[in-house]
Amino acid sequence: MFDIREIPELEAEMKKVNTHIERLCRSDSPSMQKMMDWVLEARGKQIRPILTLLCSKLKGKKVDATETAAVIEICHTASLIHDDIIDDADMRRGSLSVHKKFGPEMAVYAGDFMIFSTIGRTGLMNKPWYRTMFAKLEVMCNGEVGQFDNRYNVDITEERYIDNIIGKTSAMFAIACGAGACEGKCNEDEQKAVDIFAEKLGLIFQLRDDLMDFVSTSELSQKTIHNDFWSGYYTLPAIHTFADPECGAELKEIALEIRDGMHGKEMDSRIAELIKLTGGCQYTLSLIDRYSEEAKSALSPFRDSDPKRKLLELVDKIRTSAHAYVSNASNY
Amino acid sequence: MFDIREIPELEAEMKKVNTHIERLCRSDSPSMQKMMDWVLEARGKQIRPILTLLCSKLKGKKVDATETAAVIEICHTASLIHDDIIDDADMRRGSLSVHKKFGPEMAVYAGDFMIFSTIGRTGLMNKPWYRTMFAKLEVMCNGEVGQFDNRYNVDITEERYIDNIIGKTSAMFAIACGAGACEGKCNEDEQKAVDIFAEKLGLIFQLRDDLMDFVSTSELSQKTIHNDFWSGYYTLPAIHTFADPECGAELKEIALEIRDGMHGKEMDSRIAELIKLTGGCQYTLSLIDRYSEEAKSALSPFRDSDPKRKLLELVDKIRTSAHAYVSNASNY
Repeated sequence: MFDIREIPELEAEMKKVNTHIERLCRSDSPSMQKMMDWVLEARGKQIRPILTLLCSKLKGKKVDATETAAVIEICHTASLIHDDIIDDADMRRGSLSVHKKFGPEMAVYAGDFMIFSTIGRTGLMNKPWYRTMFAKLEVMCNGEVGQFDNRYNVDITEERYIDNIIGKTSAMFAIACGAGACEGKCNEDEQKAVDIFAEKLGLIFQLRDDLMDFVSTSELSQKTIHNDFWSGYYTLPAIHTFADPECGAELKEIALEIRDGMHGKEMDSRIAELIKLTGGCQYTLSLIDRYSEEAKSALSPFRDSDPKRKLLELVDKIRTSAHAYVSNASNY
Repeated sequence: MFDIREIPELEAEMKKVNTHIERLCRSDSPSMQKMMDWVLEARGKQIRPILTLLCSKLKGKKVDATETAAVIEICHTASLIHDDIIDDADMRRGSLSVHKKFGPEMAVYAGDFMIFSTIGRTGLMNKPWYRTMFAKLEVMCNGEVGQFDNRYNVDITEERYIDNIIGKTSAMFAIACGAGACEGKCNEDEQKAVDIFAEKLGLIFQLRDDLMDFVSTSELSQKTIHNDFWSGYYTLPAIHTFADPECGAELKEIALEIRDGMHGKEMDSRIAELIKLTGGCQYTLSLIDRYSEEAKSALSPFRDSDPKRKLLELVDKIRTSAHAYVSNASNY
């Protein structure tokens, strides 16, 4: 994705972002501070604050959006802490997840603390994007709940699936980009354009991520496949195949057998075969292509600039890597 | 505690509070709405919004604090949903807890949704108590973490324990009372007085609750005792006994045996004996008495009025019932 070393002009600003993050997450409680140190030590790619900074520069104004970017990254990190508890994930950003290190009880409060300590700061409440942030966070909760509520639902529609992604992934991208655009003095139409860009970017980001659950390549040979499918989270390649008049019924049957506790290596091969027969991965790539075009053209109101080029490049990188995964796949 | 039927003048206002709550928790997502319906069906005693309303009336001004009271109750309810996940509690307010009914994944997002949908509303951000609320919510997280971090710590000091209560219980009372006082046009000194009242009220409320873990009465014969103690949460009667030169060492030994997995009915009787010998429950009652006096005198800047009398009565009710528990106890 983004490597900050490729955008040297942002390096100094991202240092400032991280100083803000440390300040905003400081706690009087030694137990809480210990968790914060652990969380902030492992940084991740910080794609959301980078998006905030880039979007704040689209109009060429000199503004300091570093604190805003910090708030976005903190909210995102807090949501990851809660997600990891729910998914019982062991690792996060190369370290033990907070709940594995400190226990789920402590982790819930670590996430809550980060949100309260950050969004409760005075300066932020008067920002015009503050209210939008909450509206999008609501959408995010709805998306997560929608996804979970459709576990093992073999009749889930493509439309429902896309809606859930718009909630669970696009919403946070829209908060990041929207807050940046707002800081960068975008007018209402321009903010709307950035919002569409963010929605489409979230879609291709998540569709690519979901695709990776299906393809195994030599490069990724350690990776197990079909994790989502076995957990009852049906993503686009599967949903496309479910709807196929020839192969749909058989894939649904396998899905329901899995739900009922059956297992077997041959099931994985058959899943892959059925999805290959209906072109589920190619279909997903075609949607990634379409949303990529829509993301890029959403930015057309902005004149050419370095930050705009970086945003367009990001779209292309995601699209290209999704295609590469599928074409290098040994099983598709 | 409070029975709203005893305060008929508040009944109409509490109806309004509940209409606000329903509106603020409405979701576009049918899955989310299903959970909200479940949560709001079981109402509880709603002591916090009642405190908000009463405190809003201390100065005798005609103000509508019903939406504020609704926000407080929603935040509290959301925190209970998260607490129940952590404690794996089966029941809440006489119904299945949200996470038992819908699963922990859904429950985390139900709690988050309630917070986001509520505190993100425009009208609230300009309220002077909005920022204080977040500062207190931070204190609450620190208190919860502090309590958990001291599990099985037989050397926990009384001071540390009181600090944790101020976080986990008093903070939410202070939000409720403080927001009410603020709506009711209290000046800075009066708000400070209400804040002290709330802190002391939280203390006696929690100390009484903690006492109930030690006493078994005929009335409460179904109730198991020493739940907190067996879970490693040491409350004042135990902490007082830990510090006793005669009995402390033995109780600590039992505590550590429990931590290491030992069990036995005779351990419960010995715990009760040791606490009785050192007067752990009486000591707790003496603190309840002291904090009750402090709570009541905190309200002295306010002239006599119906709402003030209700607040003083509440303090007395909590104190009296705590004394009754201990004097009716069959084991103390």
